[in-house]
Amino acid sequence: MQLLKERILKDGVVKKGNVLKVDSFLNHQMDIDLLNEIGKEFKRLFADCNINKILTIEASGIGIACIVAQYFNVPVVFAKKTQSINIDGEVYSTKIESFTHKKVYDVIVSKKFLSEKDNVLIIDDFLANGCALEGLVDLVTSAGATIEGIGIVIEKGQQKGGDMIRGKGLRLESLAIIDGMNDETGEVIFR
Amino acid sequence: MQLLKERILKDGVVKKGNVLKVDSFLNHQMDIDLLNEIGKEFKRLFADCNINKILTIEASGIGIACIVAQYFNVPVVFAKKTQSINIDGEVYSTKIESFTHKKVYDVIVSKKFLSEKDNVLIIDDFLANGCALEGLVDLVTSAGATIEGIGIVIEKGQQKGGDMIRGKGLRLESLAIIDGMNDETGEVIFR
Repeated sequence: MQLLKERILKDGVVKKGNVLKVDSFLNHQMDIDLLNEIGKEFKRLFADCNINKILTIEASGIGIACIVAQYFNVPVVFAKKTQSINIDGEVYSTKIESFTHKKVYDVIVSKKFLSEKDNVLIIDDFLANGCALEGLVDLVTSAGATIEGIGIVIEKGQQKGGDMIRGKGLRLESLAIIDGMNDETGEVIFR
Repeated sequence: MQLLKERILKDGVVKKGNVLKVDSFLNHQMDIDLLNEIGKEFKRLFADCNINKILTIEASGIGIACIVAQYFNVPVVFAKKTQSINIDGEVYSTKIESFTHKKVYDVIVSKKFLSEKDNVLIIDDFLANGCALEGLVDLVTSAGATIEGIGIVIEKGQQKGGDMIRGKGLRLESLAIIDGMNDETGEVIFR
């Protein structure tokens, strides 16, 4: 997606440790016009799919998923990172190791909101080592729902997540795949 | 907001301990059409305000804030609940005690995204004892930004948050104020 790549080059910041900061437009401050263009692009890419629900994970996936959902006319469900006393009854749960926060989360979705009748589009902001995405896939599988596709805004192509997910035969569309970064020059190389 | 009240009566569930579950349409599964109606209503209520940014807090505020932001043509910034290694540089921080999760969070916003030039609309899903909202007000005040208004979807009128915020002279608009609930009959009484 050309507009996204241009925005990454303009406002993304490459940091030591293979970190790309896009917090000025994607995952701390959010540019809603850009999110709408992202929504249109996912709709174009998944136009042939019969999607009735979008699943994402808190926190930074939620805003993207809600804007994207407008183009599919479907509700959003977000997986929650810890058991809350406001989640009652039974839940699907899995464990996700966070690269960013260096800890393991319990991640849950209420059984009320995911079932074998659902055809799910999974949406998230980043795909790197794939732990979060693998957890979401696990939740959908536990529910007996169908994964119609996975839409990622930025995939870090040098980490194993993309290959792992594609290796499972899942349909993964990433709007920008980054194959290299240089924290000294600030260079970003797209696939 | 009549449509919201009707939805609460239809799909909200009253639980012991003064808990109202609206997780089927507002804060776990999200009805995007309803969020758009909420966005229109906040735009109507704050039409006279000069708002250039919406501030919310993760997680359940984010989706609402992003849809609402479309009616104001402004970006969304969400306060984060723990220090992340992806947040660099300086941040405004405050502490918030969560009624739901029974713990105290550090909540931060990058200084890059909130400054004295900003005229902020704060958006959140619930207002009960007001701890989260007080933290957001504190962050905006620390930045020297102006609070143009506060938009809450559901206010629990019997808890102290609403009075406390209005007592500070802040402009607070809640789309539904609940003055009583009965977990045996399921009754919900609106102000």
